[in-house]
Amino acid sequence: MSIRTLIAMTRRELDLFFDGPTGGLEALRRLPDAICLDPLSVKDRWEDCLAEIGPAALVTAWKTPPLPERVGKLEYVCHVGGSVRQLIPRGLIERGLLVSNWGDTISETVAEAALMLTLSAMRRSHYYADLMHGQRGWTELPAGTQSLLGRRVGIHGFGNVVRRLIPMLRPFRTPITVYSAGVPEQDYAEHGVAASPSLEALFAQSEVVIELEALTPSTRGIVTESLFRSMPAGATFVNLGRGAVVDEDALVRIAAEGRIRLALEVFAREPLAADSPFRDLPEVVLFPHIGGPTDDRAYLCGDLALANLGRHARGETLQSLVTLDVYDRST
Amino acid sequence: MSIRTLIAMTRRELDLFFDGPTGGLEALRRLPDAICLDPLSVKDRWEDCLAEIGPAALVTAWKTPPLPERVGKLEYVCHVGGSVRQLIPRGLIERGLLVSNWGDTISETVAEAALMLTLSAMRRSHYYADLMHGQRGWTELPAGTQSLLGRRVGIHGFGNVVRRLIPMLRPFRTPITVYSAGVPEQDYAEHGVAASPSLEALFAQSEVVIELEALTPSTRGIVTESLFRSMPAGATFVNLGRGAVVDEDALVRIAAEGRIRLALEVFAREPLAADSPFRDLPEVVLFPHIGGPTDDRAYLCGDLALANLGRHARGETLQSLVTLDVYDRST
Repeated sequence: MSIRTLIAMTRRELDLFFDGPTGGLEALRRLPDAICLDPLSVKDRWEDCLAEIGPAALVTAWKTPPLPERVGKLEYVCHVGGSVRQLIPRGLIERGLLVSNWGDTISETVAEAALMLTLSAMRRSHYYADLMHGQRGWTELPAGTQSLLGRRVGIHGFGNVVRRLIPMLRPFRTPITVYSAGVPEQDYAEHGVAASPSLEALFAQSEVVIELEALTPSTRGIVTESLFRSMPAGATFVNLGRGAVVDEDALVRIAAEGRIRLALEVFAREPLAADSPFRDLPEVVLFPHIGGPTDDRAYLCGDLALANLGRHARGETLQSLVTLDVYDRST
Repeated sequence: MSIRTLIAMTRRELDLFFDGPTGGLEALRRLPDAICLDPLSVKDRWEDCLAEIGPAALVTAWKTPPLPERVGKLEYVCHVGGSVRQLIPRGLIERGLLVSNWGDTISETVAEAALMLTLSAMRRSHYYADLMHGQRGWTELPAGTQSLLGRRVGIHGFGNVVRRLIPMLRPFRTPITVYSAGVPEQDYAEHGVAASPSLEALFAQSEVVIELEALTPSTRGIVTESLFRSMPAGATFVNLGRGAVVDEDALVRIAAEGRIRLALEVFAREPLAADSPFRDLPEVVLFPHIGGPTDDRAYLCGDLALANLGRHARGETLQSLVTLDVYDRST
């Protein structure tokens, strides 16, 4: 028997992405010549496994180990997650490997998380969570709470998530300014936002900065201490993009000073270290890096993957292809 | 010297409502024949004080003690807060006392808090706050997180806050159903929401219920255990109205079972007791009853109060009058 499709995902990933109202798990089982393999169980011999099985299509998720530079007759990687930068060497795509991901499927849930974390930082939500749960306290007067209404919002990045976030900000009547190197001016106008002339101007002139830029060699560490210090006192910085876009040592210092409000869902090193100084600062809104697909909507990624597997089998054009351009711009 | 205006607010209340970008504190100081009195300093002899000073206008906030049934030549109570039900006996308004409050000034910040708490409950925000801060943990997969996108939202109540909340929910494409006894059908249609035939239908058919109904003799305890049990498993209940609208003993039982998600900003008894069982449930999103004016927007209430004091002095019509109808419908 020859294996056409290798599904290299953990049980929990399978449940997250395929156990939904559309019957994804059943559809996976019905795939012809497909096998399922927990990648953690073959971690040490992953490359050998892949070579022995020799599938035409490979279904991957977050726990799938990186692919080697040579992948035999593999034609297609159907990634149910987002970025494949840690999974697939760029050279494979250059040499014609087809790769798809979740495309725009979960951009809206990330945007929703961005709004939640922004409001939470402005309302000092984790401080009050600690007051109510930890200290068993109460207060009758707000202290240092802020509303998003009418605030100048700056966004670093202009990908799918940002485009979904803009409509969610509209009811708050926030002037929105965006900075992202290489985006044509007309794109900003189409979405009704202003283009910032520079990253420096974005930080200096925004009361709320939402970080959603891709991590590339040119953006690594680009958000520096001086940018944070240029923000107005009491301003809010929210990161749901990539931790390493920020100088995190500087961010720790800034956080300890309490001059700006922070909500962080991504970190330079994940998992976040148990002794990270952020954890000792109750004012800092912390969330694990799970702002993407919520449990109730992750099945939409599974549905997209199943549809793409069908298209590939029939020789049709795939959706949400990871082209070299998408690869280079992804977070 | 006769005192025209008595400002009976604490220093912290004065700062919250008047120390803003529009110079409210200075404007207060310029009021003719006005004195400022910390109501906490005269708590035991409040009624005597009021009778001795005999102001024509009284400026009040949350800490001002209740007025007696007889208030001499007092013509006008300028309340910088919202509900005056605990402050002013209904009979005084019946007999012609003028009363104004913050009107619609802060409805939008309460609506914003409602959205934040709803998203937080659906994302298990306090559970993850505890994971990140308290347990110093991490997770790579979401567990039980939900998105608001497309969820059936039911709202109990149809006052100013609800009318401001509706536009904030629109980007999430949530069908919205509202129930509030005595509201004309056409009001719902004007705001693009559906009317629920009953409170029972609202709870049974909504995946998210946001409680914003006024507390009156007919709504006290109206949200019963059977309503909670009729909600779909995993549904979310958020209360920013009044705690006593809910059977709180039942809510504690429901909360402990974990079948529905909760976010609570109001409680039957405030301050919330230190030994409240809610505090031991890390899944329950708790916030003190400060979802109303944020520090940065409370000055708008002060501005309205100052404008009304001017109108009263000039014999003009007041804004945001608390009529008997408003009195009876307020939370």
